[in-house]
Amino acid sequence: MKLLEDAILQRGRVKDGDVLKVDAFLNHQMDVPLINEIGKEFYRLYKDQGVNKILTIEASGIGIACITAQHFGVPVVFAKKTQSRNIDGPVYTSKVTSFTHQREYDIIVSKSFLGPEDRVLLIDDFLARGSALLGLIELVHQSGASIVGAGICIEKGFDTGGKLVRDSGVPVESLSIIKEFRDGKVVFAD
Amino acid sequence: MKLLEDAILQRGRVKDGDVLKVDAFLNHQMDVPLINEIGKEFYRLYKDQGVNKILTIEASGIGIACITAQHFGVPVVFAKKTQSRNIDGPVYTSKVTSFTHQREYDIIVSKSFLGPEDRVLLIDDFLARGSALLGLIELVHQSGASIVGAGICIEKGFDTGGKLVRDSGVPVESLSIIKEFRDGKVVFAD
Repeated sequence: MKLLEDAILQRGRVKDGDVLKVDAFLNHQMDVPLINEIGKEFYRLYKDQGVNKILTIEASGIGIACITAQHFGVPVVFAKKTQSRNIDGPVYTSKVTSFTHQREYDIIVSKSFLGPEDRVLLIDDFLARGSALLGLIELVHQSGASIVGAGICIEKGFDTGGKLVRDSGVPVESLSIIKEFRDGKVVFAD
Repeated sequence: MKLLEDAILQRGRVKDGDVLKVDAFLNHQMDVPLINEIGKEFYRLYKDQGVNKILTIEASGIGIACITAQHFGVPVVFAKKTQSRNIDGPVYTSKVTSFTHQREYDIIVSKSFLGPEDRVLLIDDFLARGSALLGLIELVHQSGASIVGAGICIEKGFDTGGKLVRDSGVPVESLSIIKEFRDGKVVFAD
């Protein structure tokens, strides 16, 4: 998606250790008109799949998921990291290892909000090693819901997550795929 | 706002200890069409105030803020709880005590995304003791930005936060104000 790639080139910053910072427009300050275009594109890609629910993970996925959900006219459910005790009743749970925070945590979704009748689109900002996305997929499997696919804003194409998720049978549409960082610059896959 | 009050009455649950659970439509599963009506209402209330940025706090404020921001055509910035190390450079910081999680934590906003030129609308899902909102206000004061006001979905009118914030000079518009919980039912203020 050219608009997103342009934003990455113009407003992203590459840091040591293959870290791409997009906090100017995607995950700290959020460029809502740009995210609306992202949501439209996810809708174009998945509109014929009978999606009735969008699932994401707190925190940075939530805004993207909500704006995308406006195009589908469906609710969003976001998985919570379990520092929260503000959920009562039974939950689905899985584990996620955060590359950014370098720790493992549990994620949960209340059983009230995901079940066998659901056709779920997964949304997240980044796909790198795939831990968050695989954690969400595990939650959906526990619920008996169907996974339509995943919509990702930025995939690190050189990392392992994209292949892991696609090999598991879940379609992934990434709006930008980074092939490599070369001399501190982003190079996109064709 | 009648639509929100109806959702609270029909889909909210009152738990022991004056806890209102709205996870079916506001802060775990998110009813995006309802939240769009909430965003419209915040826009109606604040549209003439020159708002150029919306500030909220992760996680449950983000979706509401993003959808509200679509009506204003402005970016969202969300304050992060500082378990995140994924921010480099200088930050504004303040402290928040979570009633739900019963602990204190730091919240931060990068200095890149808030400054004296900004006219900020604060958005959050709940206002009870006011700790989160007062933390956001402190961040804005540090930045030199102006606060236009706060837009709150659900205010516990019997709690101390609303008076604290209004007495500090920040206008607050709450779309529903709970006067009390009586026999496990929500009673709204007139």
